Amino acid sequence: MEPHINFITLRVEDLEEATRFYTEGLGWPALLTVSGEVTFIQAGHGLTLSLFDAKGFDADAGGRRLAAPMTLAHNVGSEAEVRAAVESMVAAGGTVVKEPLRAEWGGYHALVTDPAGFGWEIAYNPYWSVDADGTVKMGGD
Amino acid sequence: MEPHINFITLRVEDLEEATRFYTEGLGWPALLTVSGEVTFIQAGHGLTLSLFDAKGFDADAGGRRLAAPMTLAHNVGSEAEVRAAVESMVAAGGTVVKEPLRAEWGGYHALVTDPAGFGWEIAYNPYWSVDADGTVKMGGD
Repeated sequence: MEPHINFITLRVEDLEEATRFYTEGLGWPALLTVSGEVTFIQAGHGLTLSLFDAKGFDADAGGRRLAAPMTLAHNVGSEAEVRAAVESMVAAGGTVVKEPLRAEWGGYHALVTDPAGFGWEIAYNPYWSVDADGTVKMGGD
Repeated sequence: MEPHINFITLRVEDLEEATRFYTEGLGWPALLTVSGEVTFIQAGHGLTLSLFDAKGFDADAGGRRLAAPMTLAHNVGSEAEVRAAVESMVAAGGTVVKEPLRAEWGGYHALVTDPAGFGWEIAYNPYWSVDADGTVKMGGD
């Protein structure tokens, strides 16, 4: 598996407050906002900080208890690569929380925990890309 | 504050197991290992995944309970910039957990939580740099 992290997702009880802190407060640019659900913020070269409403976060984790109310995401280029990355993580000692499946948002993803229990989303998202300068594009062209 | 995250630090009970998972298991390159304390892994353009032994993590957080057993770090170029970034975070609604101070490792840092309680280290580290291709350099030239 290539060493890269593309999303850091924080589970927040108050999405509006968290969004205000990072966007209005710190002036970090929101890439995409889905009211009441999630805010995506550019946070580095090809890196997105996601603020995920607690209800949605918990539903996405399938009720499974993670080591922390956050996940890291590793994006790959195809559904086959999602399955291959999940196999690599399991072979290395990870545990599958959610088997690879088609997601509501049109992509394909799985959730795996590392040996300490931290959650990793492995995802193929056809609507996501990173420009040469590191700017994240979401929602297609 | 510029929107960038430079470190994702995970608190792990078993540092050897966590290190094996990412380095030997997944083949991600360790940048620096301090046996029994911490493992730094290249995880993106200018981005480091740090595995921090639980005892050291807790000492670093000064006993303060964070929303998650992990922190994010925002690196800046000077001690004055650390203080300015902390002021920005407080003005935006953050809470100081550890006031800016000189760290044992030779840098200068502070710990602040966002409104949801997630911990942010704001740091000036003279021994840290990022190459043009995104490779992180630690430990000086």
